[in-house]
Amino acid sequence: MAQSQAPRVGMEIPQVSAVEKVSGRAIYAGDIQFQGMLHAKVLRSPYPHARIVKIDTSAAAQLPGVKAVLTGADTPEGCWGVPRKEHRVLAVGKVRFVGEEVAVVVAVDEHTAQSAVDLIRVEYEELPALTCCEDALAEGAPEIHEGTANRSKEVHIVRGDVDAAFERAAVIHEAVYDVPSQYQGYLEPMATVAWAGGDGRLTVWTSTQSVFMARTRMADALNRPVSSIRVIQATTGGGFGAKIVEECNSVIAAFAATKVSRPVRLVNSRLEDFLGCRMAVPERIWLKMGVDTNGKIVAKDVRITAECGAYAGLSPHIMVVSAQRSDNMHRLENVRTHAQTVYTNNPPRGALRGFGGQQINFAVNSHLAVLAEKLGMDLREIHRSNAIRKGDTSVHGWTFGSAGYIECLDQVCEAIDWENRDRARLRGGERKRGFGIAPAVHVSGNRQLGNWDGSTVTLKINEDGRALVRSGECDAGQGSATMFAQLCAIELGIPVDHITVMAPDTDSAPYAIGSIASRVTINGGNAMIRAARQAKDQLLQAAAQKLEVDIADLEWKEGRIHVREKVDGSLSISEAVACHIYRHGGSGVEVQATYDPPTVMMNKDHYGNVAPGYSFSAWGVQVEVDTETGQVELMQVVVSDDCGKALNPLTLHGQSAGAAAQSIGWALYENLQYEDGRLMNGNFADYTMPTAHSLPRIECGLIESNEPNGPYGAKGGSETVIIPGAAAIAQAVYDAIGVRFTTLPITPEAVLEALDRKNKGTGHACV
Amino acid sequence: MAQSQAPRVGMEIPQVSAVEKVSGRAIYAGDIQFQGMLHAKVLRSPYPHARIVKIDTSAAAQLPGVKAVLTGADTPEGCWGVPRKEHRVLAVGKVRFVGEEVAVVVAVDEHTAQSAVDLIRVEYEELPALTCCEDALAEGAPEIHEGTANRSKEVHIVRGDVDAAFERAAVIHEAVYDVPSQYQGYLEPMATVAWAGGDGRLTVWTSTQSVFMARTRMADALNRPVSSIRVIQATTGGGFGAKIVEECNSVIAAFAATKVSRPVRLVNSRLEDFLGCRMAVPERIWLKMGVDTNGKIVAKDVRITAECGAYAGLSPHIMVVSAQRSDNMHRLENVRTHAQTVYTNNPPRGALRGFGGQQINFAVNSHLAVLAEKLGMDLREIHRSNAIRKGDTSVHGWTFGSAGYIECLDQVCEAIDWENRDRARLRGGERKRGFGIAPAVHVSGNRQLGNWDGSTVTLKINEDGRALVRSGECDAGQGSATMFAQLCAIELGIPVDHITVMAPDTDSAPYAIGSIASRVTINGGNAMIRAARQAKDQLLQAAAQKLEVDIADLEWKEGRIHVREKVDGSLSISEAVACHIYRHGGSGVEVQATYDPPTVMMNKDHYGNVAPGYSFSAWGVQVEVDTETGQVELMQVVVSDDCGKALNPLTLHGQSAGAAAQSIGWALYENLQYEDGRLMNGNFADYTMPTAHSLPRIECGLIESNEPNGPYGAKGGSETVIIPGAAAIAQAVYDAIGVRFTTLPITPEAVLEALDRKNKGTGHACV
Repeated sequence: MAQSQAPRVGMEIPQVSAVEKVSGRAIYAGDIQFQGMLHAKVLRSPYPHARIVKIDTSAAAQLPGVKAVLTGADTPEGCWGVPRKEHRVLAVGKVRFVGEEVAVVVAVDEHTAQSAVDLIRVEYEELPALTCCEDALAEGAPEIHEGTANRSKEVHIVRGDVDAAFERAAVIHEAVYDVPSQYQGYLEPMATVAWAGGDGRLTVWTSTQSVFMARTRMADALNRPVSSIRVIQATTGGGFGAKIVEECNSVIAAFAATKVSRPVRLVNSRLEDFLGCRMAVPERIWLKMGVDTNGKIVAKDVRITAECGAYAGLSPHIMVVSAQRSDNMHRLENVRTHAQTVYTNNPPRGALRGFGGQQINFAVNSHLAVLAEKLGMDLREIHRSNAIRKGDTSVHGWTFGSAGYIECLDQVCEAIDWENRDRARLRGGERKRGFGIAPAVHVSGNRQLGNWDGSTVTLKINEDGRALVRSGECDAGQGSATMFAQLCAIELGIPVDHITVMAPDTDSAPYAIGSIASRVTINGGNAMIRAARQAKDQLLQAAAQKLEVDIADLEWKEGRIHVREKVDGSLSISEAVACHIYRHGGSGVEVQATYDPPTVMMNKDHYGNVAPGYSFSAWGVQVEVDTETGQVELMQVVVSDDCGKALNPLTLHGQSAGAAAQSIGWALYENLQYEDGRLMNGNFADYTMPTAHSLPRIECGLIESNEPNGPYGAKGGSETVIIPGAAAIAQAVYDAIGVRFTTLPITPEAVLEALDRKNKGTGHACV
Repeated sequence: MAQSQAPRVGMEIPQVSAVEKVSGRAIYAGDIQFQGMLHAKVLRSPYPHARIVKIDTSAAAQLPGVKAVLTGADTPEGCWGVPRKEHRVLAVGKVRFVGEEVAVVVAVDEHTAQSAVDLIRVEYEELPALTCCEDALAEGAPEIHEGTANRSKEVHIVRGDVDAAFERAAVIHEAVYDVPSQYQGYLEPMATVAWAGGDGRLTVWTSTQSVFMARTRMADALNRPVSSIRVIQATTGGGFGAKIVEECNSVIAAFAATKVSRPVRLVNSRLEDFLGCRMAVPERIWLKMGVDTNGKIVAKDVRITAECGAYAGLSPHIMVVSAQRSDNMHRLENVRTHAQTVYTNNPPRGALRGFGGQQINFAVNSHLAVLAEKLGMDLREIHRSNAIRKGDTSVHGWTFGSAGYIECLDQVCEAIDWENRDRARLRGGERKRGFGIAPAVHVSGNRQLGNWDGSTVTLKINEDGRALVRSGECDAGQGSATMFAQLCAIELGIPVDHITVMAPDTDSAPYAIGSIASRVTINGGNAMIRAARQAKDQLLQAAAQKLEVDIADLEWKEGRIHVREKVDGSLSISEAVACHIYRHGGSGVEVQATYDPPTVMMNKDHYGNVAPGYSFSAWGVQVEVDTETGQVELMQVVVSDDCGKALNPLTLHGQSAGAAAQSIGWALYENLQYEDGRLMNGNFADYTMPTAHSLPRIECGLIESNEPNGPYGAKGGSETVIIPGAAAIAQAVYDAIGVRFTTLPITPEAVLEALDRKNKGTGHACV
């Protein structure tokens, strides 16, 4: 790959931040070091539920080097939170989970700040803690938030006549799935530097997926106008949903900065990050599905109890996704969902890559496998007979301009030699081989509250013919900056390294939603192409005026403006920029373009075509289960991603492999352990995310279904890959040892216990 | 003045940076302190002209804490300079003035850097030094720059028939004026922090009047594309012309930063600033003028030898201004100018507030006073009979949409009671009282090379209904940010403190020329108004769509959108912004508007209407000269400024008083002393800028001539005030003691010497 050449669609381009990242010179928020900067540390609640009786900060405040000791009493009245503004900057009156932020100390260094934190004496009066949904929903349970009956949201969705349809079903299966939470496990914990300037404005450098949402959050929390806050995205070492709208590190740092006149740095340690972040939403899913003799799903009934923890955050949105998103990948008519989010005194839950998709996908795909088996059908065939196709409108109103369901499935089946899997079975011994496949669907964008899913790009072409792109969509590592640079370079016919994509900054970037819902490739990408074409038009006009030719006689080719049918007389972009500026009425070349997709918001019945495109993926896995140790070994993992068009296969492979790794972790290894609401394994030694050593080579296939709404046919890439992994793995484990897991992770202990029960015949073969 | 109310035109508004400046919290470039930042110090030439034989940096490089020792040999091939690219970052081969930059050391602190500078051994071979124009122009003089004959520019301008016109003159006067250089004396010396990031880009925070010119300068000098450099204006503590295009502090800091991977800070000490900056252009002006019996100037002939010092810089442009600008304030027909800039081995000269206007103005106004006296006319009357008027086109093609010459003069005459000045004369004693008046003209903008004088403003209206303004025009203290905020606030009907004017930043600001030639009020101001109206239109459209009314039924009043003839149903700006974003095809509110004035470039004959408006000013002064001590005491100083319309009288008063103080310094106190090209008084103890104590109360009057091209009638304010001060003071001194000074400053020593000669009758009464 040559960065110095104008790129093509499909050219492998290293991420534009690659060099500064691998050379250690990228500036993450924690790397920002102003002289005179102060450091903050947070005191967290040790109780899942307690009344704060008294806080004695006197000893902390007297520690030399301490500049401020702040508690809830010092915080503004403002509350933040999406959808409910229920979060104060620091706890006031009550704590509702272990880890809730009670006080913050600002001091000359982190060590002093931590020492002062340790000197704060908080008198708590413990309150009854509700650490599971059952308790929270029990009659007479105390309310964690008054007037809520411990429910933060409830939805009922009914399409068709579900009961009648079940009557027609040839086979019906019913089961309960318990899917756990998961830590996002980004390399860079939450980190912020905030500075209240002499002009009364607050500048905040932080690790975020959305600078504008961060700005709103701080404005809400600090009770000040958004315009008085400037949020600049520092290099961000992964977000995976946790850095969308729910992180409070930036809010606390910003608050602390308003109390001292020096910059304040607040960087979570890994433990603090485990305690302070909003991990994935655990759900209990009761699912009943009926199929006809051809395997066609005729009815589906689902009940979901999702736990939002102590504060609602995005959990209600995630629950809604679980409640209906997976329905859209099948040709369904009769579905019924009742889903709710329940407050508990566990830590608040939130978004993780896949956004509720993987929870329900695990249930639905596991269910389909059972139904196929009951029908004596091949699993691949039951998928084929239910798969949504290009041109379809789903039961919830999604319309598919492209759909790679079948193609993704075919790709993985071929790669794992699905048809001949029986030949690959092991004979005898402790190791059992099994195969699993599973597909998924995900949005590329999502028109949500506010009826807007647009993206705006500002493009400036400098006097040297090179370009600068400003967008508010954040690159948290997923490659959006590289996508912008590539599309811009393709349009202008110049090398990628002639393009700078500015870090999002609420002062200089156009208003934006941010990097969520795999929305940036279609929405941002289209805006980028529009902006580039607009800039080209302006330059062509200026060139036509200068060359005294009709604009129709000019063409833009390989980064130059040529007069058609003339050999000489072409202008470089640089020269054209000069023509654009230096004339009567001239100006620098700076254009802005917006793409807002032709989507609709879900209506009150949760119906509507919310995204301009929908990505599919599928997994094919081959496992070996060691029946002696219980270890599930992944012998082959193939993921297929329907990205519409592979603009840059390098990024897609990276993202698909990452998503697959996260899915493998959730399926097999990661196990958050709580005791009475206290996380017991908040570190990477005990919380066993898969390491490079424990991962197989992940084969990443691409399906190019050519999304008509997408830039050059592209749509959101790779997020879909996280969704079906657990189902595929669980299916392969079942295929190997005949035990169906309905809860995760499938640890060696769980395998051994299940095998034990199976052998003893004391339990069902469903765990 | 209430910042919380929507302002009016003419309301006194403190500068938007006032609080952070007076509270000491504004961040000047020298205040930027990154951890790990390195510090640079420069080694300068002790010789006015020498060949660099050898530089031994070994001892310096070995000093602990030194990170880099760089000389001309390390610099890129690139040269910078306007109009001639003749400057390397550091001297290569030769030094051409005392103070020329020979080496730079980067070290862990300033002290270490300076110690290392002292360890650098440079072997020079001295060359003959040309320290005055006569020597430089003498036949056989060595060339300072090869092939130039020591002339960097020469102009001949002829209008009408000068010789024939002199034949018709009733009185002719001929004299030579020697006007000295002057240090700009801003509070903040040149200062820069530069950082070469891991992404290969260079970020530079510097004290500048033009971020884009700074960027070009660095790109030229460092031989890299402008797009690889980001220049951000730090708070700037005055520029007065010296921080337009000629400062090299930022270039050297940027260069040093490319050689180390940490931020580099280079802050001039006051002495370094005296040595390294480009002070005003000294000129010898031979002037011959003839008037008719009515005092009307019939012919003018001028020859100017302007010294540009060792490098041309802006001196040729400044010389051209001296050569013709003052002609435009009179109704002239016959003028002839021959002017040139001459290289010497003195430090390079450059721009100072007034930009060559004060040099020639001193001569012309002094001359007119002589001619009036010879004719027995009142000085005020000779001005009246020559004054250019609104609607006139001057001899060099300037057309006046507004002209406050007479009004300014009337205002100062009234204030000093000019008509009755004889009554105020002192009788007897050593103290003699005298009166002087003088007018001037200056441009408000200047269409120069490149045929563009436009200004672009980006306006973003946030979701809280507050606004952010981005412009590349720099506020160096003169108040342009406040002007932008005020105009924006007036247009939107919101308080000034709801508006943030972002510091210019080449990445985020639209392309701009910068703060030169008093161009920002008309050009930037009009762009601001256009942008605000465009934003209002967009918001009205969004509101009309939301309210389902015709846009014609809406009106914008007091920061709200009202439905005409309806009491209720109005929208706040904040609500209108939400309507603008949250809809199909919506986007954040961000608009960009450019105003390029209806001017032309000077043609090759130096003819053309170069500015959209021309400001006038006048001085009236009353002095007492102590004939025993030679001290000139300013008893009354009245300045009048024709600013078109006083948008914000507070800023205008500040700027007028500052310009007057600078003019007083030049006229009476400031005296750069060189010995063989070496500045002997590069400090504020010996270079006697006027202190508060030595200044009288300066009465600042305003004339509102209502410039049709200006925003609400405004044009450039207060720069014109620096121009006629010396002439008015010299005239008053003559009026007091009968000695005409043709050189400056009029120090006590000069006064005593002149009186001595006058009394002895040994010299003429003209010094």
